[in-house]
This record gives sequence, structure tokens and C-alpha cells, in this order.
Amino acid sequence: MHKLVAIYKQPEDTSTFDEHYFHVHAPLAKKMPGLKKIEVTRFTGTPMGDNAPYYLQADLYFSDRSSLDAAMGSKEGRSAAKDVMGFAGKLVTMMVGEVVTEEDLV
Amino acid sequence: MHKLVAIYKQPEDTSTFDEHYFHVHAPLAKKMPGLKKIEVTRFTGTPMGDNAPYYLQADLYFSDRSSLDAAMGSKEGRSAAKDVMGFAGKLVTMMVGEVVTEEDLV
Repeated sequence: MHKLVAIYKQPEDTSTFDEHYFHVHAPLAKKMPGLKKIEVTRFTGTPMGDNAPYYLQADLYFSDRSSLDAAMGSKEGRSAAKDVMGFAGKLVTMMVGEVVTEEDLV
Repeated sequence: MHKLVAIYKQPEDTSTFDEHYFHVHAPLAKKMPGLKKIEVTRFTGTPMGDNAPYYLQADLYFSDRSSLDAAMGSKEGRSAAKDVMGFAGKLVTMMVGEVVTEEDLV
């Protein structure tokens, strides 16, 4: 499994960010061909109780690297990428990764 | 679902890091009470083909925030925390987050 990870720094206005993220951006991202699963995490702090350095993380799962690359190169992928650069270009860090351990424990 | 996220910057020596991470640290982390799932991702780059700012991310899933807090405060949690600070204190960023969207799409 390969993931496209988008991790966002704290926005100035979280309600404006959330409005665009959940109602415009996520629906665009979900149209990417080959996308198996999406998981969005909102960070609430550090384990020590400090502010988290990031606000939100989206993990987009694909079965392999070539599916991920195809999705990013697709019309839907380019549309989602253009949207993210428009509303969160200064906040977002994008990375590609491989899931090397995935284990259910309970 | 709540997650304890540990995200590691690029280590100087990835094979020494991996050796400790997968053979010492991960087994300690997996002993944390209430841990539902562990997912470890190795970042390979950015979508643009640049080096990723991070090397590895571990997502530890708990059913809720109080289970996560109890796990961190447990003997096993303190042991895992002590270990991570010893081998990767300068590389790791730890955050707590809530999974707000989890959707299987294919």
C-alpha cells in the first residue's frame, strides 16, 4: 500500500480552512482514480499538552506506487492539486510513502 | 478513533535507525495497552520528486482519547517513550490527533 500524505500547518482561521477543506477539497480528492481509502486526522496537541506543529493530515491510500502516480497525473488529481495550492499552498507539505507495517492488535 | 503520531526526520544512518526502530522500538510500542492498530509509513519523496522532509511516520490507533492517555501513562507507554527519546529524541515529533474522516472508496 502506498500513501499520498498532505500535512497542513495551523491555518490562521480554522473555520474558513475547514469549510474549504471538507466541502470543496476533500470531495475533489475523493474523485482521484484508484483511491482506496482516505483518512483525515485533526491534531489536537502534543502528548505533553503543547500545541501541535500541524493542524490536519490527510492520508490517501493506493494499492501501489504506480496507481498513486497515475492518480496524481489524472485530470482529477491535477484538479485536486490545483485546489490545494490555491487555498493552502503555504500550509501544506506533500509526501509519498510506502506502508511498511500495518498490524491490527486488538 | 484517536492516534498517537510519531514522525521522524531523516536520520544520519537509516540502517542503524531501522535496526533499532523495527527490532527494539516497535516491539516496545506494540505492548502499549489498548493499542488497536499500528501503521508505519516510510516516506520516499515528495510528489514533485524531491526529498521528503520526513523519513518515517508511525500511527498508533486507540479507540478514544482516554485509552490513548492511559496507554501513554502506562508502564509500557513510558518505556516506549523513554526508548524513543534515547535513539531518536532529536528526530521525532509527537502529536495526538482525532481521525475525523475514514472512508473506504474502492
